[in-house]
Amino acid sequence: MAQAAPSDQHSVGLVTAESADFSGPFPLASGESLPAYTLVYECYGALNADRSNALLICHALSGHHHAAGYYDLEDPKPGWWDTAIGPGKAIDTNRFFVVALNNLGGCHGSTGPTSTNPATGRPYGPDFPTVTVPDWVNAQAALADRLGIERWAAVVGGSLGGMQALQWALSYPDRVGATVAIASTPRLSAQNIAFNEIARQAITADPDFREGRYLEAGVVPTAGLRLARMLGHVTYQSDDGLREKFGRAVRTGDLDILQDVQFQVESYLQYQGKSFSRRFDANTYLLMTRALDYFDPARAFGDDLVATFAAMKAKLLFISFTTDWRFPSARSREMALAALRAGREVSYVDVDAAQGHDAFLLPVPRYLEVLGTYLRGLELRP
Amino acid sequence: MAQAAPSDQHSVGLVTAESADFSGPFPLASGESLPAYTLVYECYGALNADRSNALLICHALSGHHHAAGYYDLEDPKPGWWDTAIGPGKAIDTNRFFVVALNNLGGCHGSTGPTSTNPATGRPYGPDFPTVTVPDWVNAQAALADRLGIERWAAVVGGSLGGMQALQWALSYPDRVGATVAIASTPRLSAQNIAFNEIARQAITADPDFREGRYLEAGVVPTAGLRLARMLGHVTYQSDDGLREKFGRAVRTGDLDILQDVQFQVESYLQYQGKSFSRRFDANTYLLMTRALDYFDPARAFGDDLVATFAAMKAKLLFISFTTDWRFPSARSREMALAALRAGREVSYVDVDAAQGHDAFLLPVPRYLEVLGTYLRGLELRP
Repeated sequence: MAQAAPSDQHSVGLVTAESADFSGPFPLASGESLPAYTLVYECYGALNADRSNALLICHALSGHHHAAGYYDLEDPKPGWWDTAIGPGKAIDTNRFFVVALNNLGGCHGSTGPTSTNPATGRPYGPDFPTVTVPDWVNAQAALADRLGIERWAAVVGGSLGGMQALQWALSYPDRVGATVAIASTPRLSAQNIAFNEIARQAITADPDFREGRYLEAGVVPTAGLRLARMLGHVTYQSDDGLREKFGRAVRTGDLDILQDVQFQVESYLQYQGKSFSRRFDANTYLLMTRALDYFDPARAFGDDLVATFAAMKAKLLFISFTTDWRFPSARSREMALAALRAGREVSYVDVDAAQGHDAFLLPVPRYLEVLGTYLRGLELRP
Repeated sequence: MAQAAPSDQHSVGLVTAESADFSGPFPLASGESLPAYTLVYECYGALNADRSNALLICHALSGHHHAAGYYDLEDPKPGWWDTAIGPGKAIDTNRFFVVALNNLGGCHGSTGPTSTNPATGRPYGPDFPTVTVPDWVNAQAALADRLGIERWAAVVGGSLGGMQALQWALSYPDRVGATVAIASTPRLSAQNIAFNEIARQAITADPDFREGRYLEAGVVPTAGLRLARMLGHVTYQSDDGLREKFGRAVRTGDLDILQDVQFQVESYLQYQGKSFSRRFDANTYLLMTRALDYFDPARAFGDDLVATFAAMKAKLLFISFTTDWRFPSARSREMALAALRAGREVSYVDVDAAQGHDAFLLPVPRYLEVLGTYLRGLELRP
C-alpha cells in the first residue's frame, strides 16, 4: 500500500496521543475492580457545535490508539488504519470527529498488565483482572463522558473491534447512532477458540513467561509471542492470498538437493513473529484472546440473536470478506439476518477480497467505498 | 467409533510386527546415503500363488506399521486404520495381502533419528539425513523385493500416504496396478507450509530440543511437540466438525464471572497434544513435515501435472472430503483432471463428510464404500 506522507492532503497529518486518568473503583464483569486507570487516545478532526459528529474507532487484538496520522515528520509509517481515516477518506475527518483509544488491559499506554499495581508497587502482570468486551465499552463510555460526547454518530471496528461496536449498541442503546461491525462474529467458534488456545499455550509454555511475572524477572517470552503471532498471521490470511503472495517460492537453499531450503512464506512468518514479539506484551495477548473467547452477547438473551439485536437502537452496517475463514461471511450474514428480523435498520455487504480476515486493515477499494458511502449517508443528530 | 475385538470376524485378529534389515549404502535424494537400515512392517491376509494380490499401505505424518489388528488379547485398541482393513472390510484381507510399514526416518522401529548412528555410536538425532517421498518409495521397493512382491495390485494412502502412492506410480510405473490417493495433494500450498513451519518452530524453540540432541541430554521437547500436535489437530478438522463436537461447551469454570473458564475444545486439544508428545519423536516430526513441504513431483516435469501423470501407468482413484481445508477437494480434482488428460484410467469421488482432513482415518460409511467398491473391482494380474 502506498503510504501518504504527513503533508498529503488526505492525511490527518501530525497527531499527538492524549491521556485521561480516571479514579476508580472501576467495576468489571468478573466481579473484580480496578482502583484507577488511564486511557490513552487520539482525536482526528473537530467536534462540531452540537457534538453530533463523534465517531469511535475500536481496535482489534493487536491494535491501539494510534489509528491515523504521523507523530513527526520522520515517522516512517502512519497509524494502523490510516488507509481509512483522513480528510476525504472513508472515515472522513472533514465530517467526523474521530476518537481512537488503547483499550484497558492493552500495552500501548492505557492501564494494563505492564502498568504498576498500586497494591504492590510492581507490574500487574498476571494479576491484571480479566477484562471483557463489555468492560472495554464501559471504559470507552467513561472516556466519552470526559470528552463531552453524549452520543456517537457511529462506533466502528473490525474483528474484535466489531464486537465492541456491537456491544456499544447493546450496553448504551441511546448513545450510538450507527454500529459498523467489519469482519466480525457474534461469538467465536470452537475452531477460533482452539487457535487462541494454542497461541496462549505457546506463550505460557515459554520458560521466560515465568507464570506471567517476566517483567519482574527482566525477561520477555519472545519465543512464545513469536509463535502466537505466526499462528495468528496465517489464520488472518487466506490460502489463496498466501498462494498469490508466496506460492512455493524459495528464499534460500537448493530444492534439487534439499539443502537448507527455506520457502519465502517461512521467512516472512518468522519476520512477522519476531517483530511482533518485540513490541507486544504477552499478558495483554492472553487477556485479549480471552476477551475474544468470552464474547457472546446472545448468552444473556437465551442464545437468541434476534432478541439480542432487538435490545439495540442503532442502525447497523456489517461488512465481511469472501476469503475470511477466521470470521467467515456466514457469521456476518447470520448477524445481519437476525438484526433485520429484530426490526433494525441493516446494511450488509460481503466484499470480494483475496486477503482473508486481514482485508479489514487493507486498502481494498470496494470495501473502503462501501464504508465511506455508508458513513457519508449517516444523518448527524445530537 | 466402535472398536472391534480381536475375536471379531471382521478383524485381522492378533498380529505381529516383523522387521527387515537392509545393508547399504542406501542413496537418498539429498545426495547423502544411509549405511544400513531396518524397516518394521506388518502383513495381513495371505499372498496368493501368483503374487498378484499384494497391497501396500503408506502412512501419513504420525502413522506407522501397525495399521490393523491387535498385539494381544488385552490390547485396548487396534491399528490406526482398522476401520478400513480386515476380512470383508474396504481393504479386504480375504482378497488382498496387505503390507504396512513404518517409513524410514520414523520413530516406531524403522531406522530414524532415534536409532544409533553407526558412525558415532550415539543417536542420529539432527544428523539423520533429509528423507523425501521418493526416498520412502525406494525403501518400500526394497521391502517389496525382500517379500517377493514384484508388483502391487494397489498402493493406498491418505494425506502424506497418498503422496507416496502417487510417487510409486511415478518411480516404478510397472510395479503398481492402482494408486489410491486419499485426501492428498500434488504439492503443499504456502498456507500448508506455513502451518508446518509454525509446528517446527514450536519444536525447535523448546529449550529441551537442544538443537536436536535431546536424547543424548536425557530430555524431550514435550512442550514443543505438544504445540505442534495441537496445531496439526485443529487444522486436520473442520470448523463445522469442531462446532458439532464441542461448540462453546465449557468444561470447568464459570462463564458468568469468567473465572478459570476452560472450554471443552481447549482441554481436548491439550489432552491430544500431551498424549502425542509422549509417544512421538521431535526429529521425526521435523523430518516428516519437511518431506511434506518438499513433495512436488511435477517440478521435474516443468510444473506440468498432465506430463507428470503421463509418466505413470497405474489406474488412479482419488478421494477427497468436502470439509478438508488442509488438502481441499480442489487439489484432488486438479489431479484427477490432469490424470484424465494424461490418458490415465481415473476415478474421483468427493465425499461429503464433516470431519475435515481427519475423515480419511475415520469410519465414514460413504468413503469406505467407495474405497471397498473400487478395490473389489480391481483385476489382479501378476
